[in-house]
Amino acid sequence: MKNSSCIVALLPDNAQAEVPVGTLLSDAIRQAGLEAYVPCGGQGRCGRCLVRIEKGTVQRRPNSRLTAKQIAQGWALSCQTEVTGNVSAFLPPDKTRVEEEVAGTAALKAPREAPPPRDPVVSHHLIELNPPTLQDNAADLERLRRTLAGAPGIRNLDAGVAVARDLHRTLKEGEWKATAVVEHALRGGRSRLVAVRPHDATGTSLGAAIDIGTTTVTVALLDLRSGRIIDHATAFNRQISCGEDVISRIVYSQRGDGLEHLRRLVRETINDLLARLYQRQGVPSAHVDHVAVAGNTTMTHLFLGLEPRSIREEPYAPVATAFPTARSADVGLDVNPEASVYCVPAVAAYVGGDITAGILSAGLDRRRELTLFMDVGTNGELVLGNSDWLVACACSAGPALEGGGVDCGMPATAGAIEGVTINQHTLVPTLQVIGGGAPRGICGSGMIAALGEMFITGVVDKAGRFAAALAGAGKNRHPRLVDTDHGHAYVLAWGSESATGENIILTEVDVSSLIHTKAAIYAGLAVMLRALDIEAADIQAVLIGGGFGQHINVEKSILIGLLPDLPWDRFRFLGNTSAFGASRALVSRRVRRQVEEIAGKVTYMELVADNTFMNEFTSSLFLPHTDLDAFPSVRETLAQIARTGTGPDRAGERRRP
Amino acid sequence: MKNSSCIVALLPDNAQAEVPVGTLLSDAIRQAGLEAYVPCGGQGRCGRCLVRIEKGTVQRRPNSRLTAKQIAQGWALSCQTEVTGNVSAFLPPDKTRVEEEVAGTAALKAPREAPPPRDPVVSHHLIELNPPTLQDNAADLERLRRTLAGAPGIRNLDAGVAVARDLHRTLKEGEWKATAVVEHALRGGRSRLVAVRPHDATGTSLGAAIDIGTTTVTVALLDLRSGRIIDHATAFNRQISCGEDVISRIVYSQRGDGLEHLRRLVRETINDLLARLYQRQGVPSAHVDHVAVAGNTTMTHLFLGLEPRSIREEPYAPVATAFPTARSADVGLDVNPEASVYCVPAVAAYVGGDITAGILSAGLDRRRELTLFMDVGTNGELVLGNSDWLVACACSAGPALEGGGVDCGMPATAGAIEGVTINQHTLVPTLQVIGGGAPRGICGSGMIAALGEMFITGVVDKAGRFAAALAGAGKNRHPRLVDTDHGHAYVLAWGSESATGENIILTEVDVSSLIHTKAAIYAGLAVMLRALDIEAADIQAVLIGGGFGQHINVEKSILIGLLPDLPWDRFRFLGNTSAFGASRALVSRRVRRQVEEIAGKVTYMELVADNTFMNEFTSSLFLPHTDLDAFPSVRETLAQIARTGTGPDRAGERRRP
Repeated sequence: MKNSSCIVALLPDNAQAEVPVGTLLSDAIRQAGLEAYVPCGGQGRCGRCLVRIEKGTVQRRPNSRLTAKQIAQGWALSCQTEVTGNVSAFLPPDKTRVEEEVAGTAALKAPREAPPPRDPVVSHHLIELNPPTLQDNAADLERLRRTLAGAPGIRNLDAGVAVARDLHRTLKEGEWKATAVVEHALRGGRSRLVAVRPHDATGTSLGAAIDIGTTTVTVALLDLRSGRIIDHATAFNRQISCGEDVISRIVYSQRGDGLEHLRRLVRETINDLLARLYQRQGVPSAHVDHVAVAGNTTMTHLFLGLEPRSIREEPYAPVATAFPTARSADVGLDVNPEASVYCVPAVAAYVGGDITAGILSAGLDRRRELTLFMDVGTNGELVLGNSDWLVACACSAGPALEGGGVDCGMPATAGAIEGVTINQHTLVPTLQVIGGGAPRGICGSGMIAALGEMFITGVVDKAGRFAAALAGAGKNRHPRLVDTDHGHAYVLAWGSESATGENIILTEVDVSSLIHTKAAIYAGLAVMLRALDIEAADIQAVLIGGGFGQHINVEKSILIGLLPDLPWDRFRFLGNTSAFGASRALVSRRVRRQVEEIAGKVTYMELVADNTFMNEFTSSLFLPHTDLDAFPSVRETLAQIARTGTGPDRAGERRRP
Repeated sequence: MKNSSCIVALLPDNAQAEVPVGTLLSDAIRQAGLEAYVPCGGQGRCGRCLVRIEKGTVQRRPNSRLTAKQIAQGWALSCQTEVTGNVSAFLPPDKTRVEEEVAGTAALKAPREAPPPRDPVVSHHLIELNPPTLQDNAADLERLRRTLAGAPGIRNLDAGVAVARDLHRTLKEGEWKATAVVEHALRGGRSRLVAVRPHDATGTSLGAAIDIGTTTVTVALLDLRSGRIIDHATAFNRQISCGEDVISRIVYSQRGDGLEHLRRLVRETINDLLARLYQRQGVPSAHVDHVAVAGNTTMTHLFLGLEPRSIREEPYAPVATAFPTARSADVGLDVNPEASVYCVPAVAAYVGGDITAGILSAGLDRRRELTLFMDVGTNGELVLGNSDWLVACACSAGPALEGGGVDCGMPATAGAIEGVTINQHTLVPTLQVIGGGAPRGICGSGMIAALGEMFITGVVDKAGRFAAALAGAGKNRHPRLVDTDHGHAYVLAWGSESATGENIILTEVDVSSLIHTKAAIYAGLAVMLRALDIEAADIQAVLIGGGFGQHINVEKSILIGLLPDLPWDRFRFLGNTSAFGASRALVSRRVRRQVEEIAGKVTYMELVADNTFMNEFTSSLFLPHTDLDAFPSVRETLAQIARTGTGPDRAGERRRP
């Protein structure tokens, strides 16, 4: 006999939910009040939402992500498994689960301390009104307007209703002295009174600049008068639980109330960061009078609640690139309810406001020499140009470099292997771990280093295949090489050395993902250079931004063919260019106009529309590249290794018991 | 033994509440979920919130409104009585309680059918976009902006976030055809996209014009393209339960969450009227794209949530007269959430947007001849002038003419006596009742008529005192004269004839209230004329607006000295000039600029600041006036009566059993 509903009991939390037959386990987990960790957005692609069925019956949808052995052990993908009766299931802790705050994030670097804006977006005015009399009993707001009419830049002052609601009390209690906060229109338009607060000559005037990354979110608190960053905080974007890359998030957004759920998650992420900053700085939320946001096009859509579906559907026309300026109440931010929320404009579906902000931060639009700006995160965006022209493209890099879809991958936070050197003879690795403790996994920069080292030590060949000689059967096998469900793998750390108790490995599938990632980025660059008839060597500077960009090792990146083979001194790492660009657009109207000019000036090159991309991509699926002429320094390194004859020594490390 | 809390049981509804000792009965009634009817705002002034204590102990605050007999019978004012133990009380039904919809309200008269606006505030555009392609994959919103850029009057189009949220679905499902709704800035400024809806060539484009009166609220639904009023509905302002006049409401707003409560009541009143119109017309609320509101300064403050306290405190400077334009979400109206809510600007604390709208409706600012505009409601506002100048003043008329503070008073709705003639000999009245049935009370126009008739038939003298000869003791007393707690009274209808079963009377106190009301209005006019050195006879036209203005009888009004003694053909009744003015400001930018010009052009004359007001007021406390020279037609009438010698005949009506 079949019941129409079943009980799903979840260990080790002892939570449970009653759901109809046919419900996905991931939905049942959410209904039970637990976070269902579905990094690929529920597509059954990433294999991260594993649960172990302890008791009861389920129906697995066809999926190749699990091995027969795993299935025999009871493992199932919660996003691909339907409940068909009462079920008891175990949810393992996930090593890449969202943490409270990113521990090892580099400080928000300001390339240079910007001077106080001469044309502030928000200005503060210490005012003193004549008290009303029977002879002059004009209304409070009119009295205020009259006083402010003399202030520079104020035209046709509008007032928010919320401001007018407290106006009388503030004026009366302050004996007709107060601080008026005015937001200025960008061009033309009307000024808007966003707050009237007690008279305070020393009070700081606050704004928030927010970088919404696919993986991490950074909020900076600024003094709007000086433009100075007072404090900042970074956390994982809670949306990670619904998908690790933008495509997974878009897929998730198309499910039921998926869009609303994603919107809530990023809002909560931001509000928690704001709350932390308010507490640290001892300021009230109502004193944040203006907000600027930069994010990729999908993140900005999800933040504003715009449907992102067309971003992944040809012809990739998003809902907006010049975004509506919202009021904080529209987007649920815990700041002054009259504050405007400005989103830095995007260029196209895959070149977002984070890149516009990045170009601003890098000063790309003011440089005379040919410069390449790269933002390598979950997507890789490239902008080439100078003060005369700017061309951008986006490559679907995939989440590998941010730890997504890689067996032992994790974001660049405490416990992540971020640097690797491999002994040429013994193949024993030396690891650099963020925070210095036992490793828990490997992050993007670690992967780049590991792959580069594996390549030049012969662990993998130029196609990313593990050397047959090392992976041979029985005695012939090198101890650092093991077999996994995802093919051969190189052991970076043994279970006995790791924080998780399990081997930290890079598998053949991982290597293939990494090669696809770097190939996509390099192919994008190659197509762009070819289309513009420019040689890579003509690029005078490579400016690298993005949260990830702070960790990349240039030498290893060139070695695997991720970065073009240029003199190392042409590369510069700028840190979080998106957050910094948002900070500058937050405070100055001139900068905001500049940002809009940048967004309008960038020519977007759609790689999918270009026939040469697949050719370039295919050529890039080798280490460093099919065309070794493009990587002379790598050719030299390889030749040197060949000359010295040194190669991996199979007996160098004892097989472990 | 005393308990700290007591049970208040309320009949006949069998509701109850547990409250602390010392709680006001009116608060306990509200806590029990019943509406506490406190027309004077809880000041113990109006005597309307009567309850009868059936059982238990209460503490009455000192108050002279109740007679010893009433107190002996258990009657108490709920706003002035504290609970001191368990209490059982009876709430009598109140004949002036708020009803669902005003039944007998005259139609919203349009003085003339306005032509379609040539410069609409909101314009509709049938658009057809080129579908995006890989070669042109600009964002939906940019595509829309590009298309609309050609439309007349659209500059720097901003878009609401809510609009962008549905944009993609609407465009895609409509195969890239749609209707775009654009709100235009008044001057300078930017245009704003407030809706994109499915392509509909015939669809009406809706707006709402709202008149928020102290007593009644009118909502009109308009076609924004033609400017035509499609439908309208009127209801009592639910705030009446918290006070009948603006001063009582302001007093109420200063109590705890009083302001929030008043804001909710008027919002509910408006939303219910909107819902009724939506149902009648079969239109969705989201299609109302713009709202214009006119109300007196206090009503507009309460609607927007601005503190009205300074309106009743010298020097009477309100929070705003040029009100912030709100978004519908800010004020909780059930219309398109992106719709703006424009409030017609006020002139001063006691000359509100309803008067600005009234001047517009009356065309006062375009007239060459000297014209008086009067809006006689709970307040009386007077505007004198022509196309060159406008001077306004406000007189605290009091709620008498709208049925407030009068024993048998009621608003001009079904069952109200609206016309009275009294037989010179028998003193038997002939009544005109709204709706034609048995009378339930008397409204303002009925009171004016009754007082006029009582005056010329000698029931009252020129000071409003009842004729001693008629009110004599025993046999000498005329049967139509009775004694009440409020002094002598004239019986308009016997209990056996009335719908309530009780005599409908006008008492000496009522007559005094009426005389004070008319004196305040006439004194205002007299002060204004004197200050401007103008003779009443110079006034070429008197235009009377306001909901009340539809019912006043000119002859009787002159007879009691409410209106100046001019040829009757100089008077014109315009109906609800506030709602009509709001309708016109709703649709046209030109009219809106005109409205702002009017508000800026009117010179407000503060009567309290003028020493002559008290003199004029005192002189006006007679029927028709101390100075009979100012009322030649009344003098003629009185002289004629004296000549013919006809007077009241005491034996004309049999004493009733």
